[in-house]
Amino acid sequence: MSHNSFGHLFRVTTWGESHGPALGCVVDGCPPGLRLDAAMIQTFLDKRRPGTSRFVTQRREPDEVRILSGVFGDDRILEAHGGTVTTGTPISLMIDNVDQRSRDYSDIRDRYRPGHADQTYDAKYGLRDYRGGGRSSARETAARVAAGAVARQVLGPDIVLRGAVVQIGPHMIDPQAWDWDETERNPFWCPDAAMATVWEGFLDDTRKAGSSAGAIIEVQAHGVPAGWGAPIYGKLDAELASAMMSINAAKGVEIGAGFAAATLSGEENADQMRYEDDDLMFLSNNNGGVAGGISTGQDIIVRLAIKPTSSILTETKSVTRDGENVDVRTKGRHDPCVGIRAVPVAEAMLACVLADAKLRHRGQTGL
Amino acid sequence: MSHNSFGHLFRVTTWGESHGPALGCVVDGCPPGLRLDAAMIQTFLDKRRPGTSRFVTQRREPDEVRILSGVFGDDRILEAHGGTVTTGTPISLMIDNVDQRSRDYSDIRDRYRPGHADQTYDAKYGLRDYRGGGRSSARETAARVAAGAVARQVLGPDIVLRGAVVQIGPHMIDPQAWDWDETERNPFWCPDAAMATVWEGFLDDTRKAGSSAGAIIEVQAHGVPAGWGAPIYGKLDAELASAMMSINAAKGVEIGAGFAAATLSGEENADQMRYEDDDLMFLSNNNGGVAGGISTGQDIIVRLAIKPTSSILTETKSVTRDGENVDVRTKGRHDPCVGIRAVPVAEAMLACVLADAKLRHRGQTGL
Amino acid sequence: MSHNSFGHLFRVTTWGESHGPALGCVVDGCPPGLRLDAAMIQTFLDKRRPGTSRFVTQRREPDEVRILSGVFGDDRILEAHGGTVTTGTPISLMIDNVDQRSRDYSDIRDRYRPGHADQTYDAKYGLRDYRGGGRSSARETAARVAAGAVARQVLGPDIVLRGAVVQIGPHMIDPQAWDWDETERNPFWCPDAAMATVWEGFLDDTRKAGSSAGAIIEVQAHGVPAGWGAPIYGKLDAELASAMMSINAAKGVEIGAGFAAATLSGEENADQMRYEDDDLMFLSNNNGGVAGGISTGQDIIVRLAIKPTSSILTETKSVTRDGENVDVRTKGRHDPCVGIRAVPVAEAMLACVLADAKLRHRGQTGL
Amino acid sequence: MSHNSFGHLFRVTTWGESHGPALGCVVDGCPPGLRLDAAMIQTFLDKRRPGTSRFVTQRREPDEVRILSGVFGDDRILEAHGGTVTTGTPISLMIDNVDQRSRDYSDIRDRYRPGHADQTYDAKYGLRDYRGGGRSSARETAARVAAGAVARQVLGPDIVLRGAVVQIGPHMIDPQAWDWDETERNPFWCPDAAMATVWEGFLDDTRKAGSSAGAIIEVQAHGVPAGWGAPIYGKLDAELASAMMSINAAKGVEIGAGFAAATLSGEENADQMRYEDDDLMFLSNNNGGVAGGISTGQDIIVRLAIKPTSSILTETKSVTRDGENVDVRTKGRHDPCVGIRAVPVAEAMLACVLADAKLRHRGQTGL
Repeated sequence: MSHNSFGHLFRVTTWGESHGPALGCVVDGCPPGLRLDAAMIQTFLDKRRPGTSRFVTQRREPDEVRILSGVFGDDRILEAHGGTVTTGTPISLMIDNVDQRSRDYSDIRDRYRPGHADQTYDAKYGLRDYRGGGRSSARETAARVAAGAVARQVLGPDIVLRGAVVQIGPHMIDPQAWDWDETERNPFWCPDAAMATVWEGFLDDTRKAGSSAGAIIEVQAHGVPAGWGAPIYGKLDAELASAMMSINAAKGVEIGAGFAAATLSGEENADQMRYEDDDLMFLSNNNGGVAGGISTGQDIIVRLAIKPTSSILTETKSVTRDGENVDVRTKGRHDPCVGIRAVPVAEAMLACVLADAKLRHRGQTGL
Repeated sequence: MSHNSFGHLFRVTTWGESHGPALGCVVDGCPPGLRLDAAMIQTFLDKRRPGTSRFVTQRREPDEVRILSGVFGDDRILEAHGGTVTTGTPISLMIDNVDQRSRDYSDIRDRYRPGHADQTYDAKYGLRDYRGGGRSSARETAARVAAGAVARQVLGPDIVLRGAVVQIGPHMIDPQAWDWDETERNPFWCPDAAMATVWEGFLDDTRKAGSSAGAIIEVQAHGVPAGWGAPIYGKLDAELASAMMSINAAKGVEIGAGFAAATLSGEENADQMRYEDDDLMFLSNNNGGVAGGISTGQDIIVRLAIKPTSSILTETKSVTRDGENVDVRTKGRHDPCVGIRAVPVAEAMLACVLADAKLRHRGQTGL
Repeated sequence: MSHNSFGHLFRVTTWGESHGPALGCVVDGCPPGLRLDAAMIQTFLDKRRPGTSRFVTQRREPDEVRILSGVFGDDRILEAHGGTVTTGTPISLMIDNVDQRSRDYSDIRDRYRPGHADQTYDAKYGLRDYRGGGRSSARETAARVAAGAVARQVLGPDIVLRGAVVQIGPHMIDPQAWDWDETERNPFWCPDAAMATVWEGFLDDTRKAGSSAGAIIEVQAHGVPAGWGAPIYGKLDAELASAMMSINAAKGVEIGAGFAAATLSGEENADQMRYEDDDLMFLSNNNGGVAGGISTGQDIIVRLAIKPTSSILTETKSVTRDGENVDVRTKGRHDPCVGIRAVPVAEAMLACVLADAKLRHRGQTGL
Repeated sequence: MSHNSFGHLFRVTTWGESHGPALGCVVDGCPPGLRLDAAMIQTFLDKRRPGTSRFVTQRREPDEVRILSGVFGDDRILEAHGGTVTTGTPISLMIDNVDQRSRDYSDIRDRYRPGHADQTYDAKYGLRDYRGGGRSSARETAARVAAGAVARQVLGPDIVLRGAVVQIGPHMIDPQAWDWDETERNPFWCPDAAMATVWEGFLDDTRKAGSSAGAIIEVQAHGVPAGWGAPIYGKLDAELASAMMSINAAKGVEIGAGFAAATLSGEENADQMRYEDDDLMFLSNNNGGVAGGISTGQDIIVRLAIKPTSSILTETKSVTRDGENVDVRTKGRHDPCVGIRAVPVAEAMLACVLADAKLRHRGQTGL
C-alpha cells in the first residue's frame, strides 16, 4: 500500500527530498549471510552520479552511502567471508545531500513547470516542497541504485545485469553493431560506437539550444533460471512494467519484441524450441524471457521510453497555483537527456524485481 | 503478495481454470451503498464473450454471472435505490464453465506449445492443468471484466472509460478518422470505419491461413480529477503498466506519447497550460493525463501491445516435457487476433486501477 | 489491506453472508503437488458443523464443500499421488447455505442487539445485511476451517495441531488431568473427563435459562521447527494474536504463560536449556514456543478467551437505528457457548499462520 | 510482507540495531498539512528514555530525534501553521546511538541467554549481531515512539491516548483508586498512589536480588468515533492484538473485559445501550470499545502482559551455539521491570493502529 515502497519479500522503502539534509532507503527482507559493505554499493552509485560528463547535470554530489544497520562482522565473520555480511535485519542506507545550492525559489513556488509534477503534487497534497523538485526530483533514484546493489548480492554472480541506451531523440543504434564493452567507453552507455559519435553532436546542439532530448533504454538479465515470476497479477513482466514505469520521466515499457510484436504473424513471433545436448534452447526470444508471467530461462529483455527532460530554457506557457497565466523558463543545472543517467536506475530496478522474484519463488513452490 | 489478487483498497482476487467447473472473483473493498446487480455486470461480460463473430474463438460460453455475496436489498433499499446495493462486504462473483468440450488432451499434456505458458508453468510448478491452458487461459479475463463492472460503480457516471483497437498486424488506423461511435459498429472495436474494412480482409486471410495477428489497443478515461495516484512506486502510470501487462499476451504498455516521446524535443513534448474561464487547460496531452505519477485532470491515455495468438495451425519446432524434440500444431477453437477481445479486459483493468486510486486518494490525503 | 484476507504467502480470502446463497474462500499461494480433495477438507468442516449436540446451535447445515479450482488429477497424477493434487493456482472452496430459515427480520432490522456488530456495521457502512447477522455471523468461520484443511497439507504430517476448551464460565479444567484422547469423547473438546461432566450440567442450566457462557480455548502445535516467524512486526506470536482475535467473540489472546507471566520472577519465567543427546531441550515452556517472534522448536501454545454468546433470551436495554430506546430479546437458534465450536476454528487459524510462516521462512532466509 | 513494517495506509518501517550507529523509522502515508517538528516528537521519546529513574536501565541515551524528510515550511507555511508541516511524502526519523558502551561480547556471542531471542535468531538466520541484543533489543521501540508521535498528529487533539501500569509482579492496583494524574507523579505510570509505594519496595528488592518482574499495562483511547476498523481479518481488535504482541516481552493481549469475559454470563457481559439527549450511551464497556472489529464509540481499552526482563543476575542453565551445556548470568545495565518503559511504546502502537484505521475508514466507505 505504501507508495514509497517497492517489492514484496525483498522490499525497498525510499525517503528524502532533493534539497533536504539527506535521502536514503530501508531494504527489508534481504537474506542473511551475504557479503555487503559500503564500497560495494558505492560502485553503482558512482555510475549514476551527477557531474561526470557535460551531458548530465552539473550538480556536484559525492553521493557517498553509509550503511546504518543490517550488516555485521566480528572476527569470525570477517575471516570466513572477507568482510561484513547481511544479518537478515533491515538495511538502512543513507546519502547526504551536499550541493543544495542556496537560491531563491520564489518563482518555482508559485509557477507550474510543464511536464513536472508541480501541478499534480499541489492538486493532491495542497502544498509541496518545491526546492529542486522536492520528492519528485530524480535524486530519489540514488536510493534505488543503492538498493539495487543489495539486490545484486541476492542474485549472486551468475545473474548478469546490463543496460544500454539504444535511442536518443530520433537517433537509434544499429542492433547489429551492439558491443557491450562499448557501453563503458562513452558517456551515453551506447553499445554502438558510431552512434555514440552522432549522439555527442546531437546532444551538444540540444544542450546549447537549452532544449532536451528523450531516449530509449534497454536492460537485460542473463542467467535467470526458468520458473521465476508467477501467473496472473504477479507476472514477472507486470512487475517489471511497474518498476520501470516508476522511474522518473518513463512513458513506456516493453518486453522482448514489445510493440513490434503487434505487427508480426503468429509464425514469426513464436519462440520455437529445441533440445540441444540436454539443454532447452529457443530459436528466438520475442517473448523477452517471460511467458505466462514466468521466466523461460532466456535473457530477460526490457526497454523503456524516457521523455525529454522537462526543464528547458525555452519559455513555455503555464500558470501559477493562484490561477494566473504566466510564461516559465527553467533555469538551473539539468540533464539535457535524463535517459542517460536512467540506465543504472533501470538496472537497479531490474535487480530488485529479480531478487524479489527469486525469494518469492522459494515460498511459492518450496516445502 | 498473492499473485491472483490485484489492487489495494479496491482489491480483486480471481480463481478458476479454463476447464474447471467455474471461474470467478472476490471483490474486496467496494464501498457500501452502490447499486449493483447481475444484469449490470452481464452487460460488460457480453462485450467480451466468445463466439460473437467469426473473428473470435467459437467456444460457446454464455458467461452468465451470479453474485453470491456482498449485495443486499430489502424493501427499504429497493425503494430508495431501485435495486440491490453493495454492503461493503466482499462481493463474490461466479461464472460457470459450460462448453468444456470433451476431448483428448494427451498431446498438449506432454508437448510445449511455443508462446504459451506450458514450459514455464511446468518449470515453476512441476505439473499443470493443461486442459485448455488451465489457469493461463484467457478465460480468466472474464472474472476481470466482472470485477471491472463493479469498479465502474465506484467511479460513478462522471468518469467515462472507453477502448479501441488502433492497429492489427501492420495496419494502423488514421487517428484523424477517430470516431468512438464507430467502435460499436464493427466487430473489432475499430474507431476508423475505413480501417475496419481493411482488417476484415486481413483477418479473414489470417484465419484461413491458420495464422494469427497481433494488435495495439488504446483505452482512455475521461473525467478523472487531478490528484489521483501517488508518487514514486505507487504511480498511477506504474499501476496501469502493471495492470495492462498482466493481461494475457500483452508485451508493451505506454502512456500518452509513450515511446514516441523519446523522439520529441523538450519543447514539443511540454504540455503547456493556460487558465480559461477559471479552468486549467492543457495545450497538449503528451503526458497522457499523468505527471509525477498523479493524474493531471486530462484524459488518461494508455496503449498496450498484444502479441499474435500463440495457437496457430502451422507446425512449429518444440519439445516435450520429457526432453524430446517434436513438432506441434495447435488444433481447436482460437481467436485469430486475441487483441480484439482484450479491449473490454483492458477497460476493466483501467476501471479497477482508477477505483483503487479513488479510494486510496481519500486515505492518502483526507482527514 | 483487504480486510477479508488473511496471510501473506499462504493467503486466504473469505466471502459470504449467513443467509446468502453460499459462502466460501479462495486460498492463494498453496504450493503445487500436495494431495487435496473435498473429503480431506470435509473432515474438518464436520468438526465445526452446527447441530451435532444440544450444546451448539440447532441450525441444520450439511456444510458440504466443493473445490472449484486449483486441484488437478489426470491418470498420471492419480497413480502417483493416490488422488488429485494442488497445482499452485488459487483454490476456490464453496459451501452452500441450505438452512436459511425463512422468517421475519423486521425486528433485527431496526434494533441493535447488545454485543453484536449491529450498531457498528451501521455506523461504518450505513446499512447492513441483518439476516442472521449477515457477514458478522460465525458462519464465516466455516470458510476458515476449509482453508485450515489446506494449510494442514502445507504443514505435512509431522506438525500436529490440536485444540481443547480449558474453561467454560467459571469452571476451569485441572491441567494435571489433561488427556487429549478425552477431547474426542465429549461434546466440549474437554481434555478433563471430570470437568466435562461439570460443564454438561452447567451448560444445560445455561441453555434452559436462555443465557450463555464464555470459554477459554487452548490450541497447540507440535513439531514446528526452530526458526519460523520473524522479528519485530512479523512476529509469529503477533500473527497468532491477530489470527485468534479475528475469531468471532474473541476478547483475549495469550502465548505460553501469557498473563500469568506478569506474576513470575525472571528466574521462574526463564525457559532454561540443556543439550541432551545432541537435541536442544528446554526445561519449561513459559514462552509458549516463541522467542523474539521466532519459533524455538518447543510446542506452540496459544489460548484465547471467547465471550458469552451475545444472543440471549433475557431482555436487554437497547436502541433502534432511528434513535429510540427499546428492549430486545434474541430469539432463534444459538450456541449457548460459542467457545465450543470455536475450537476447530482456532485450530484452522493456527494452521494458516504456520503454513504462511513455513513458506515465508524459505523466502526470508533461503537462496 | 516486510516484517519490519507496521500498518497499511499509515505505515511505519523501523530499522537499526542496539549497538549500530543509529536507529530510526520511515513513516509513509502521513497526510499532508499536519504540524510536525522534532520537538513534538521529542516529548514522547523523553517519556521512554532510559536512565530516568533507578527502576529502568542505566544506559544513557539522549535519544535525540532528527527529521530527515517529509516536512516543509517556507515563510507562507510558517506563518499559516506556526511551524513546519507534513507534505504527504515519507517522514524519515533518525536517532543516533550514543552510549554503546565498549565491552567484550565474546560470552554472549556463543551463549544463549534464556528468554532472549539468541537461540531463535541463530536458528533462523545462522548468525546474529549479538551486541546488546542487536535487532531484538528493546531499543527498537524508540523508533515506534517517534512514529507514534506522528500518528497522534493524524488523530488530532480530540482523541486522547493514555497508558498506565496496572500490575507489577503479583501486585495489582485497585481500579477504584484510579487517578490518571497520579501516573505522572511516580516512576511507574501507576494510577494508584498507594500501589506505587508498594511497587517501589517490591522493585527495590527485585533489583537488589538481581531478579526481574513482569507487569500488566493498560492503554486507552478516548474520543474514537464509532465506525473505525473493519470486519473479519482487519478487525480493530485484531490489529491491536498484533501491535501489542509485537512489543518486546509481550505475552498476552486483551480487549475490554478480556479473559474475564469467559467467566461472565451473557447478561452480565452485554453492553446495554440507551439514547440520552440524542447521544448513544452504553451502560458498560465489556467490549472495550470494539464490536465485530469496529469501534463502538466507547473508549478503546487494551491490556497487555509483559514477562519479567529476561536479563537476570542469577545463573541459569543454558547452551552454546556449538552445542555445549553452560550456565549463564546476564551482566550489564537492565530494566528490573521492562513493563514500565513499555507504557509509552504501547501508547505509540495504539496511536499507529488508530491513525491507520482513521485513514482506511475513508477509503473503505467514502466516495
